[in-house]
Amino acid sequence: MERSPTATLLLSCPDRPGIVAALSGYVAEHQGNVVHLDQHVDQEINAFFMRMEWELEGFSLSREAIQESLLPLFERFSMAWSLHFSDVKPRAAIFVTKEKHCLYDLLSRHESGELKIDIPLIISNREDLEPAAERFGVPFHHFPISEATKPEVEAQEIALLRRERVDTVILARYMQILSADFVEAFPRQVINIHHSFLPAFPGARPYHSAHRRGVKIIGATSHYVTEDLDEGPIIEQDVVHVTHRDSVHDFIRKGKDLEKVVLARAVWRHTQRRVLVHQNRTVVFG
Amino acid sequence: MERSPTATLLLSCPDRPGIVAALSGYVAEHQGNVVHLDQHVDQEINAFFMRMEWELEGFSLSREAIQESLLPLFERFSMAWSLHFSDVKPRAAIFVTKEKHCLYDLLSRHESGELKIDIPLIISNREDLEPAAERFGVPFHHFPISEATKPEVEAQEIALLRRERVDTVILARYMQILSADFVEAFPRQVINIHHSFLPAFPGARPYHSAHRRGVKIIGATSHYVTEDLDEGPIIEQDVVHVTHRDSVHDFIRKGKDLEKVVLARAVWRHTQRRVLVHQNRTVVFG
Amino acid sequence: MERSPTATLLLSCPDRPGIVAALSGYVAEHQGNVVHLDQHVDQEINAFFMRMEWELEGFSLSREAIQESLLPLFERFSMAWSLHFSDVKPRAAIFVTKEKHCLYDLLSRHESGELKIDIPLIISNREDLEPAAERFGVPFHHFPISEATKPEVEAQEIALLRRERVDTVILARYMQILSADFVEAFPRQVINIHHSFLPAFPGARPYHSAHRRGVKIIGATSHYVTEDLDEGPIIEQDVVHVTHRDSVHDFIRKGKDLEKVVLARAVWRHTQRRVLVHQNRTVVFG
Amino acid sequence: MERSPTATLLLSCPDRPGIVAALSGYVAEHQGNVVHLDQHVDQEINAFFMRMEWELEGFSLSREAIQESLLPLFERFSMAWSLHFSDVKPRAAIFVTKEKHCLYDLLSRHESGELKIDIPLIISNREDLEPAAERFGVPFHHFPISEATKPEVEAQEIALLRRERVDTVILARYMQILSADFVEAFPRQVINIHHSFLPAFPGARPYHSAHRRGVKIIGATSHYVTEDLDEGPIIEQDVVHVTHRDSVHDFIRKGKDLEKVVLARAVWRHTQRRVLVHQNRTVVFG
Repeated sequence: MERSPTATLLLSCPDRPGIVAALSGYVAEHQGNVVHLDQHVDQEINAFFMRMEWELEGFSLSREAIQESLLPLFERFSMAWSLHFSDVKPRAAIFVTKEKHCLYDLLSRHESGELKIDIPLIISNREDLEPAAERFGVPFHHFPISEATKPEVEAQEIALLRRERVDTVILARYMQILSADFVEAFPRQVINIHHSFLPAFPGARPYHSAHRRGVKIIGATSHYVTEDLDEGPIIEQDVVHVTHRDSVHDFIRKGKDLEKVVLARAVWRHTQRRVLVHQNRTVVFG
Repeated sequence: MERSPTATLLLSCPDRPGIVAALSGYVAEHQGNVVHLDQHVDQEINAFFMRMEWELEGFSLSREAIQESLLPLFERFSMAWSLHFSDVKPRAAIFVTKEKHCLYDLLSRHESGELKIDIPLIISNREDLEPAAERFGVPFHHFPISEATKPEVEAQEIALLRRERVDTVILARYMQILSADFVEAFPRQVINIHHSFLPAFPGARPYHSAHRRGVKIIGATSHYVTEDLDEGPIIEQDVVHVTHRDSVHDFIRKGKDLEKVVLARAVWRHTQRRVLVHQNRTVVFG
Repeated sequence: MERSPTATLLLSCPDRPGIVAALSGYVAEHQGNVVHLDQHVDQEINAFFMRMEWELEGFSLSREAIQESLLPLFERFSMAWSLHFSDVKPRAAIFVTKEKHCLYDLLSRHESGELKIDIPLIISNREDLEPAAERFGVPFHHFPISEATKPEVEAQEIALLRRERVDTVILARYMQILSADFVEAFPRQVINIHHSFLPAFPGARPYHSAHRRGVKIIGATSHYVTEDLDEGPIIEQDVVHVTHRDSVHDFIRKGKDLEKVVLARAVWRHTQRRVLVHQNRTVVFG
Repeated sequence: MERSPTATLLLSCPDRPGIVAALSGYVAEHQGNVVHLDQHVDQEINAFFMRMEWELEGFSLSREAIQESLLPLFERFSMAWSLHFSDVKPRAAIFVTKEKHCLYDLLSRHESGELKIDIPLIISNREDLEPAAERFGVPFHHFPISEATKPEVEAQEIALLRRERVDTVILARYMQILSADFVEAFPRQVINIHHSFLPAFPGARPYHSAHRRGVKIIGATSHYVTEDLDEGPIIEQDVVHVTHRDSVHDFIRKGKDLEKVVLARAVWRHTQRRVLVHQNRTVVFG
């Protein structure tokens, strides 16, 4: 079961002939073995996307040398890229408010080893979930926040996240809107769960709106946070059927199961380096 | 397999004690046998809904006498009601424009006996699907329509539908907006299929909008037509997952399968007298 | 939101005219208000099933008098029945072995108030999950068991469950087969989660079998335990799509999410008194 | 929208370093542009699978030269392979018996251009569906068959299929078991639809078995036909939820919708050259 460490390269660039040949040739040339290669060409916008993962064992270049040796290729094809090593775990902070179902779900997936990440801290604008954090032994930081104090408090949060070397922020039903400054500090690294099948029912109280509208399905959407509320690139969505027998409280109960699983799938994919963003849409490699 | 004819009563009223007892008592008193009874109480709005179906064989009242004998009950409980007999088939007109997948689907369900309805005619604002109608032997009526001629043409259509004793209108990808007058002529009897999971992507070209937004699910919605475009009571919705590999043409291809099945389910339930409308929401009895 | 207590009557009997009238008449006669009535007639086997729930507030009979006053009705129609009060919580014991995802899931649903039950104890044939039980403050009982000691150990377990007045046993990935004696001690009160879409892949290691067979969906099944392993009445099933990219470990990871939610839904329905069993099939009221 | 013709290469071989580099290098070397490349490594069995599609426009080799120029590569890596051109349509024969829902569905998808195949003929062991075939203008061949005549009749069918240059056989609810000889004549080219979520309910009358078992989901499975009945490699499966209210006739009605869409998806993928078979499992490229 235990695999040797791998390198994963995520990249996007304008499409043109020879990209796959150049990159797979690079790995072959240094005695590497590709264990996963998935590419996608969006012909409408002439864009090329690729995820390539290869084993470090037997590879003729050191980790340090890999990035440098790839730079000429990146430049030749005008590539946007990121390079990751499978044994360097993402470090994620979880932001919460009052609801704890997503928090518990993430922590138990972490504890079981399903989510291969470090969770150095939990941040909340309220104190309600401190006992839940303690139960799993994760440090809890309480940052009360108001419109007036938001710039200052967010600056403190960002400083703390930097100190903890956090690279991923998970909003697990965090009921505060992040400022544009915060979002810019972690571009495409802040994952939110919204409790509707966006773009239906953006904003607050989507289950109430959905019940009023009389829909026959409810959903949840996980997306990267951008400056535009509920408008960021969608990573994952799922739905469940409802009927006239379901009250708004049933919607909320059933929806929680969706929120947990949709957020967990998005976090899993993000931390497995399977998600690329391009023009407000995601490419999610299988 | 062949069952004896049944009577079906659909009703809604303010909730209060004794309604079920009164109605089931009525059937028992006349030696009837209930084969389906489903009720629903919406406590939030204090409303009661019921569908009761009983066998006519052995029932001590004639069909003609049933309605009259129930009137005092309807009045006592301030009931909105409708009464149907299972061997009196609904008569449905299908409206189409260019797309034929829903039309073919409905006609083949009709031919196979799954949809127990009569389809006396097909109406279209274009001539494209006349051969398809002919193939199934259903009379095809071409009513070209423009904004200027709409009132007059719709009046002709309504007259034709009346002559043909049509009680249900199915918009099978009919690309014309019906006027309020038309809708009023067939209140809660006009069923539309919209190619998105409403309320997301109302209006035209929803697959294109969905693709641009980068959603991970697409859907279809069947609803009763009201004066407010795409805002009528929803009867049925379903979705299918999509990925970044799906172009807008794949969305359209996958969506067609949804449209067919979602519309067919709505028509089946409507013609089985399983749908009640209350305050822009439906109660769909199982 | 807080509703007054209700009485719920679950019953089955041979179908014949007048049952609904008799039961709804009974409630009306004593000034009761029915908040939920769902009946089902299985014409193939001539069986009648009903769930009726009515408010105790304003009802003219005391709780003690209800059962006695209904006995003549039960006898007249040869009814199998059970009577429950909404403020008398079911008492459930959770049986586990090593896997903790279902246990955590149930405990956090219990803690959040979603599952309105008491969980007086957790029983395991291993010690692995004692810390998990402690974390949620639920007493943990370790009963090591072998084929030789099974009769004796099970007798001790049954005695403990009786002392704790447990009425529902939840097998949350309990990897021991219960004896017929144990099952008989809690007839139709033992709920199991099996990690396949039964009847496919009964027995052990279903994910491995499913992977070998190359299925494109995997599933989970919650059912009442009977003497026949994996053959009991099914309460709930659900599935998720898989592809050739999913290894057996991915099947297991994805399957865990199914197991949690399918078991939780079954427990919720069981403890809400929505499930009836008849001839190895369930009627699950909506 | 109209794309230039492409070549598609499907292949499998033992995994080893350099395969992608060699193949993508080949295309790049001849000025080709890859529009789709998807590979999969099954580490458990050390197998490599790939689908590569590239534009013929601008490619420096003629169609005739492509296969020959690839042979050394195929040999070097011990590849099993097939090569296809997008403008050479698959030729499919549809086999039917009495049920026509799948036949109609395939023919209307063909007529609308969704299925880019030729359908030169329909074969049946009964005459029932001749009018349906005529309606769509497809030649209908009636081959009555019995256990005694099977070898001879199948030989005639094979001869006819050869004359019509048929490469794909679609069993659209064909209620006859094909002999091993027939299956060998079209290896991995015979697609069947089975009306259950295999491996549950193999054999005849699966809806009846499913109803008796009391399942909460029913399904359909499309697979390649092998000598072992209902045991061939699965291409696609899907399910729909059912409840106690659904009679076996409702199972059949709901199941038909599954059968249509599951078979159509399998045929679409097969004819788009997206399916590889290895050790009784399929790799279905996205």
